Amino acid sequence: MYKHIRLNNIRVVLSHTTHPGNIGAAARAMKTMGLRNLYLINPSRFPDPQALAMAAGADDVLQDAVLCSTIDEALQGVVLTVGMTARMRDISNEVASPREAMPKVLQEAAEHPVALLFGTEMSGLTNEEASRAQLLVNIPANPEFSSLNLASAVQVIAYELAAAAQIFQPAAMELQPATHEQVEGLMAHLEKTLYEIGFFTTQNPQRMMQRLRRLYARARLEPDEINILRGILSLTTEYNGRLKERYRQEHDV
Amino acid sequence: MYKHIRLNNIRVVLSHTTHPGNIGAAARAMKTMGLRNLYLINPSRFPDPQALAMAAGADDVLQDAVLCSTIDEALQGVVLTVGMTARMRDISNEVASPREAMPKVLQEAAEHPVALLFGTEMSGLTNEEASRAQLLVNIPANPEFSSLNLASAVQVIAYELAAAAQIFQPAAMELQPATHEQVEGLMAHLEKTLYEIGFFTTQNPQRMMQRLRRLYARARLEPDEINILRGILSLTTEYNGRLKERYRQEHDV
Repeated sequence: MYKHIRLNNIRVVLSHTTHPGNIGAAARAMKTMGLRNLYLINPSRFPDPQALAMAAGADDVLQDAVLCSTIDEALQGVVLTVGMTARMRDISNEVASPREAMPKVLQEAAEHPVALLFGTEMSGLTNEEASRAQLLVNIPANPEFSSLNLASAVQVIAYELAAAAQIFQPAAMELQPATHEQVEGLMAHLEKTLYEIGFFTTQNPQRMMQRLRRLYARARLEPDEINILRGILSLTTEYNGRLKERYRQEHDV
Repeated sequence: MYKHIRLNNIRVVLSHTTHPGNIGAAARAMKTMGLRNLYLINPSRFPDPQALAMAAGADDVLQDAVLCSTIDEALQGVVLTVGMTARMRDISNEVASPREAMPKVLQEAAEHPVALLFGTEMSGLTNEEASRAQLLVNIPANPEFSSLNLASAVQVIAYELAAAAQIFQPAAMELQPATHEQVEGLMAHLEKTLYEIGFFTTQNPQRMMQRLRRLYARARLEPDEINILRGILSLTTEYNGRLKERYRQEHDV
């Protein structure tokens, strides 16, 4: 639609959507703004006639929708995940407005897949889902009544994206960002290592992992850096293994 | 909600809405952005349980909704009517983007009632309705699929209004704009006069009145100017009446 704009690199991910009508309405909202890639994580009912009715002509978006059973499946290949949040979270994550965030989305999408992640109708993203995002976005709203309908939220975000696209000029890419899988590989490795070295005996594992995720999300890791960090983790385990082995030998356990 | 911002001066007018669910969803969209005044011109069904269900907590907006039987009733007291249009009209009216238009809405709303006018789901505003607007707004959309859901359109416009409100600084008012009734009074007077002087024997009355409406919409008439114009019209008729009288006397009709 626009030069330098790769809307095809942008996917809308709806997690655990309850009402099929909202999926259809979201597909319609996407298509009005030129978005076509819909990913659905465990929707309650899909496909469904209500979804089709509410799509009102965006049937193709529904037909091509990718059904996923986990968030990691939906975020495969993605280098930037933008999580939508209706509330300010206790965890002091960076929260941007749609207008601030969409130029960043376009910047990444010029070269890599990007995900716009929406939680369930009732409660939004879980903490686990939000922790997969490098950037959280809040649609500014009436503090006394802040809950937008899911499809309305998709419409506002898609509208801001299209508005940003009209004036977008790509900057030179400074870094080669890691994919979602590479980051998750590091996180799994890190968590396993921290267990092995006994770090979690004094710390809440879940909370600590969220804080570490946040730290690395801010850093926007490159693949090389992930290799370096994982190298350190491997050596840590190895070193720890050698210590245990020596202890075993010395004490004849 | 914000200093200088009179969201209470802004009304959302939905004309001939077919689906009550859309009225409820529009009420919810309004309330999330701090808008409360809903006017309904001849809705197909209202009140209706579907409207209530889709309002999802914006029941107060529905309860206070003003039911009207004509557009003039809905626009009573309004000094600026912004009409939403999905298409570029053949009549070369000024069409703005939401981002361009909303600061103007806030500017007027600081002192006077303003209307945001939405047409039916299927076909939008009629030409007659559009001709009541001083400003037409088009939400930029995918040229191959440009039809936003009614409530989604309300959401985008209300969102842009709230976004504009956050950075709004009122300018000094340059003029004292006429109300909708004053403008309509002039239009009726003008049309009647043009009939009387035989202007419409060679012109399509409807099309001509729309062009004249457009001209005066651009001018943003002040009450004093309306008085002047109506004074001219009155004299025109009087003069015409005197001519007829003289003709009658001279020819002994």
